[in-house]
Amino acid sequence: MIIWFATGNMHKKAELAGIFSHHTIKIPSDEGIVFDPVETGTSFIDNALIKARCLFDIVKSPVIADDSGLCVDALDGKPGIYSARYGSEDGRALNAHERNMLLLRALGNNPCRTAHFVCAMVLFLGSDRFYAAQETLEGEILMKEDGRGGFGYDPILYLPERGSTVASLSEEEKNFISHRGKAARALALLAGAGTAYF
Amino acid sequence: MIIWFATGNMHKKAELAGIFSHHTIKIPSDEGIVFDPVETGTSFIDNALIKARCLFDIVKSPVIADDSGLCVDALDGKPGIYSARYGSEDGRALNAHERNMLLLRALGNNPCRTAHFVCAMVLFLGSDRFYAAQETLEGEILMKEDGRGGFGYDPILYLPERGSTVASLSEEEKNFISHRGKAARALALLAGAGTAYF
Repeated sequence: MIIWFATGNMHKKAELAGIFSHHTIKIPSDEGIVFDPVETGTSFIDNALIKARCLFDIVKSPVIADDSGLCVDALDGKPGIYSARYGSEDGRALNAHERNMLLLRALGNNPCRTAHFVCAMVLFLGSDRFYAAQETLEGEILMKEDGRGGFGYDPILYLPERGSTVASLSEEEKNFISHRGKAARALALLAGAGTAYF
Repeated sequence: MIIWFATGNMHKKAELAGIFSHHTIKIPSDEGIVFDPVETGTSFIDNALIKARCLFDIVKSPVIADDSGLCVDALDGKPGIYSARYGSEDGRALNAHERNMLLLRALGNNPCRTAHFVCAMVLFLGSDRFYAAQETLEGEILMKEDGRGGFGYDPILYLPERGSTVASLSEEEKNFISHRGKAARALALLAGAGTAYF
């Protein structure tokens, strides 16, 4: 069946299409749909649901939406749901490198470096029905950026079990262990469980 | 594995234990745990997460929690998350029959009778990880109560496909089609999907 994905990111679309291989994934730009939800939620799951409901109201078909960010323990979970807007409160939006530098300055030499990525993903079926999965990727904040792949905060989150930052993983490795990959596979299991779930 | 269920209702425990048959379901009273979360959320899923996190902080093991209610279209979705507290804002708590009478009076002779039960259920795994399912049971509000089974608003929600109210269904029938039963089976599918999901 057709499942809409509330994103403008072709890369994310390809990743999701690989996981939801029994379905057809479409994104708003495929059909020229203008989609600009206001993320007023106070949690990742709230924001994912806001995006999902916004797109569902347009397409009237099952929708997947996600919201993700980095939670740093020594910063009381910040930047959290504001990860993409971190440091941009009062003026121009920072780019990913500038956000990383800002976060490293905020953390300074604090010896507590634990942090985790969070991804809340929703499969919204309409009329108050949905499934959701929120998954994490645990790591430690480095003292400086390392690695050239990925995006966002990937260069500063070090994964002890892998011996590298998220930015140093191959795309396949990242998709397999990432917060987003794990959440998507959980929802794909439900989406593939037969008509009982649709 | 042991999964805690944030309820004080032995009947709900038995229903969930039947669905999560590969796991052991425990409730707070099994171990004399005092558990009294304050449901300050603005949605079913928020309240289910509040309950789940509250119990997880005590037991430090996977927790299931749910929140449910009746949404009446002609009343703009009310009583919704306030279903259990409906009519009790300023004084003593109403019993189920009194709440049904209050709702029937509020709806009066309004010809729009459509309504649905909602259940948001969460399987909380700790450290910001959880799965959730929100399911519904669609029906119509009768002009008066009918049926002697079930509880809460069951006697006033008529199911056209079944030709009876929820309160007239057998317990087995109700568990099979109910909002709570469907949400629980979706989560049980994830809980049984192997260690990847724990």
